[in-house]
Amino acid sequence: MNDMTIETSAAAPREAVESWLSAFNAALAEYDVDTAARLFATTSFWRDLTAFTWNIKTVENPDGVRDMLRETLPHLGRVAFRLAEDPSQNGDVTEAWLSLETGVGRGEAYLRLRDGAAWTLLTTLTELKGFEEPSGLRRPMGAEHGISKTRKSWAEKREEETRALGHETQPYVLVIGGGQGGIALGARLRQLGVPHIVIDKHDRPGDQWRKRYKSLCLHDPVWYDHLPYIDFPKNWPVFSPKDKVGDWLEFYTKVMEINYWPKTVAKHATFDEASKTWRVTVTRDGQEIELRPTQLVLATGMSGKPNIPSFKGMERFKGEQQHSSQHPGPDAYAGKKVVVIGANNSAHDICAALWEVEADVTMVQRSSTHIVRSDSLMEEALGGLYSEQALANGVTTRKADMIFASIPYKIMHEFHIPVYEKIQARDAAFYAALREAGFMLDFGDDGSGLFMKYLRRGSGYYIDVGACELVINGGIKLKSGVGVEELTETGVKFTDGTELPADLIVYATGYGSMNGWAADLISQDVADKVGKVWGLGSATTKDPGPWEGEERNMWKPTQQENLWFHGGNLHQSRHYSLYLALQLKARMEGLATPVYGLQNVHHLK
Amino acid sequence: MNDMTIETSAAAPREAVESWLSAFNAALAEYDVDTAARLFATTSFWRDLTAFTWNIKTVENPDGVRDMLRETLPHLGRVAFRLAEDPSQNGDVTEAWLSLETGVGRGEAYLRLRDGAAWTLLTTLTELKGFEEPSGLRRPMGAEHGISKTRKSWAEKREEETRALGHETQPYVLVIGGGQGGIALGARLRQLGVPHIVIDKHDRPGDQWRKRYKSLCLHDPVWYDHLPYIDFPKNWPVFSPKDKVGDWLEFYTKVMEINYWPKTVAKHATFDEASKTWRVTVTRDGQEIELRPTQLVLATGMSGKPNIPSFKGMERFKGEQQHSSQHPGPDAYAGKKVVVIGANNSAHDICAALWEVEADVTMVQRSSTHIVRSDSLMEEALGGLYSEQALANGVTTRKADMIFASIPYKIMHEFHIPVYEKIQARDAAFYAALREAGFMLDFGDDGSGLFMKYLRRGSGYYIDVGACELVINGGIKLKSGVGVEELTETGVKFTDGTELPADLIVYATGYGSMNGWAADLISQDVADKVGKVWGLGSATTKDPGPWEGEERNMWKPTQQENLWFHGGNLHQSRHYSLYLALQLKARMEGLATPVYGLQNVHHLK
Repeated sequence: MNDMTIETSAAAPREAVESWLSAFNAALAEYDVDTAARLFATTSFWRDLTAFTWNIKTVENPDGVRDMLRETLPHLGRVAFRLAEDPSQNGDVTEAWLSLETGVGRGEAYLRLRDGAAWTLLTTLTELKGFEEPSGLRRPMGAEHGISKTRKSWAEKREEETRALGHETQPYVLVIGGGQGGIALGARLRQLGVPHIVIDKHDRPGDQWRKRYKSLCLHDPVWYDHLPYIDFPKNWPVFSPKDKVGDWLEFYTKVMEINYWPKTVAKHATFDEASKTWRVTVTRDGQEIELRPTQLVLATGMSGKPNIPSFKGMERFKGEQQHSSQHPGPDAYAGKKVVVIGANNSAHDICAALWEVEADVTMVQRSSTHIVRSDSLMEEALGGLYSEQALANGVTTRKADMIFASIPYKIMHEFHIPVYEKIQARDAAFYAALREAGFMLDFGDDGSGLFMKYLRRGSGYYIDVGACELVINGGIKLKSGVGVEELTETGVKFTDGTELPADLIVYATGYGSMNGWAADLISQDVADKVGKVWGLGSATTKDPGPWEGEERNMWKPTQQENLWFHGGNLHQSRHYSLYLALQLKARMEGLATPVYGLQNVHHLK
Repeated sequence: MNDMTIETSAAAPREAVESWLSAFNAALAEYDVDTAARLFATTSFWRDLTAFTWNIKTVENPDGVRDMLRETLPHLGRVAFRLAEDPSQNGDVTEAWLSLETGVGRGEAYLRLRDGAAWTLLTTLTELKGFEEPSGLRRPMGAEHGISKTRKSWAEKREEETRALGHETQPYVLVIGGGQGGIALGARLRQLGVPHIVIDKHDRPGDQWRKRYKSLCLHDPVWYDHLPYIDFPKNWPVFSPKDKVGDWLEFYTKVMEINYWPKTVAKHATFDEASKTWRVTVTRDGQEIELRPTQLVLATGMSGKPNIPSFKGMERFKGEQQHSSQHPGPDAYAGKKVVVIGANNSAHDICAALWEVEADVTMVQRSSTHIVRSDSLMEEALGGLYSEQALANGVTTRKADMIFASIPYKIMHEFHIPVYEKIQARDAAFYAALREAGFMLDFGDDGSGLFMKYLRRGSGYYIDVGACELVINGGIKLKSGVGVEELTETGVKFTDGTELPADLIVYATGYGSMNGWAADLISQDVADKVGKVWGLGSATTKDPGPWEGEERNMWKPTQQENLWFHGGNLHQSRHYSLYLALQLKARMEGLATPVYGLQNVHHLK
């Protein structure tokens, strides 16, 4: 390869970025927010993950940048961006990895320039100055060399901490829910030296996965699923079987020294305005304990509380009725008649598992569903960022998370629509067969597919790992385009007048907003004050406007002081736990954390 | 930096290596072993880790190379080396990373050229063709997409395997000893699809560490200690506390799906010549089971069986007597009088822990000891290969292991002597204070220090993590330069006529050769047939000649068919488990594995 050519082709983008950076740094140094704002394109996006705003916030266009900088810069001390790697050129867009330092902390940034102006900028806080994690060159020594008669061993200190915590000492943070979200956050809190307890109702970490139906495997591939600090090894399966995920979470909780209370349920929480702390009553293995954390994090699953529909005659039906979250797996229903109301992920998974044990199973599809085959999703949508190939191209997990996060939500669908057009073409025969079987398909209101549905409403799709074949060949019976009229003593009567006998009815009818957990645990007032959790305000189905710019209430301050929501898939649990942990650490250390643009509440659930 | 300069300085080494490689490859392709041998310097070393010899073998000088190639090449198919990275120049030596392919497998190599001739060559086998590990691009899928009524889940299959193994199905390999050695090997065998059981007497994996004295931390730093496949994370302590190592090993065993039988003791083993398999009687949690593995690996610790000295009057002494391996820790001996016979690692650790509980403790030093302070060792001896700095310089763990392995044992001391001269100067005051206290110091017969002592005799040193200070200040009393005359009813009488009363006598007197385990488990005949395990034949203290070139009997074929020895520190357990696992896999698959230069036996123990 000719060095000169590289030199030349790299020189122009590098010059462009350096020139932009030098103007931007100079404007920031002089608090000249007007000049700084003018360096952004007319249509432009600055997404900040707690580096400038102590919030998770996207501001738009020069006006948005100006307003944000005017309020945030005075608190940040000296701010400087530096080029971290040679920029790359993609069409008319120059992309650059930057490092970022403020008076408060250090971070990474990702910039896209077009015609010399910033089109998108992602800024992230990765560490607080003076509170860096003890990692790499800062690892703890472990052994204290030298001998002492009073020295305690690591095991003794850990045991003392564990024994005192929640009794003689109080956690600064209480995390309710010990799935991947709570565990990832717990690991980061431990590294940041934030006293914490993660509570969970199950017997052991990982039971959240182990207790699900036996053939379940992750629908996302391994490269997308790493936890912080310890990657899955190179021989880990692409789609991890659920028990293996369970074992990994259990090990991880142990070796990362997370203060994890299994068999523990939160009963009630109140916020004491005087002391700015929570009183949380929990039962731990049956024993009632009152905890006094300063910060309360709900990590009980982004799915929130089960939605159970209200049908006429539900009290009359003599068989069994369950929400999908209560379904114990197929074994007890071999040979039984089962009607599953719903046609999204859970419905498909449950129907397929019931078919395996020779149940007579019908899926009731009341409205259309987005279907995408797992391998198509991996190859067309995720592979560029999360795959062996991506790793070989130098796209580490951290870089992939950053690139992923750097696409503004406002225009993200524009990136996804062509991907799903390609998938529709690639899998045309498959989709035709599903339609032929009577299945109602969609690709989202604007054709942007799975990930946008996930971000906007967290529902409405199935990643096909096999059940579609059963819908197509009739192994799973399909009743589509009808509603439920009522339940009879022995089955379900539909709006088209037909009836189905049933021994079991499963309501795979989804989940409500996470603030429902707050209503149960704290009060309806607090739930309403916080408002709906999740969704972007995209004004698409089940995601009403106005536009919010970010996921509502996730990983950032809410209208209820010291109450936080955390969760999402493994990718989000990994990535956003960083920013949530830093926000909590900053508060514990008494740093000023002025929140820019705290969201308003437009919807209660 | 000026690109031209780099270009120029890299060109000459690259040309030198490519020219050598092209001649060497051509000679190998034509089976022209004379020409191939002439490419080696008059004094030169080719160390092969199972790529050419199906052995772990160093041959010396052109003659050694010629003899080895003459016998091995005909079995290897087409052999080709390729340059893997730009070579580097260090003084008059050009060093190069190579990749290696034979008809049988792929590997990596490391070459040092001097004056255009090979001075050292390290060749390693890293995978067998057709039997590559399911890793990276070959990861298992995990989920079998598509639905089936007979499909078993991962957990069900794992449970079935576990239940049948040792009863309906037999392991191909039985590994006796489930410390880091057995565990690292078990992980590799699992990845290679070799049915295996690792048995261990303790209740849980990791108890080998947990059950040691409470203040124990690893004396080697974290970068040196990684297991295969999963590195310790970046926040792991430099010197890992023993309970944390225990937890890691336990998790690792679980997530790597090693077939591990805790609470299991091997009682007796015999080799059945007819079937070429072993009959091994074990008791598993009290129940006797006969296993029929084809291969038997002893991984019971490179320290072998305890050496208990025979002193006059031992039967008469009314207090307690223990070998250091039986010492339960200090707690029961608070305020007691303890005499510890020995002055190496265990003696120091035990004395310091006893001092912590206010025991009256005397260390009896009968011959000189090599002492090196932990931080000096790390900074002067290990840091270039195993540290954050090394990682920042691109020296990954794999590269460090390769570089480490590339120094021929024959001349390794020449590399170490200057390091220990530097350490003696750096810590002169420390060593003077020790001598002042009466402590007898040495730096090995030739001044080559700790690692050579470890390789030659596995004993004779202490890595100071604090106990030396107690020897210096009298916290640990020292009785030096005397022998034990006899034991009395109440204490120890020394060769200088003095006496010490004792409630407890600890024999920190080291361990015998590992073939002692074979004597106990199999027979004295087999132990004698195999001969001494460990040591290089350096003709230094406790490592009698003749020169062997490699560690006796470790990780390679022995004179007893299908019997292997595995172990060493975490570094060796990690690195050499690869070659041992590949040797076992090749045999399981029925590949031809002609062993070049099987070692002769010169010493029985």
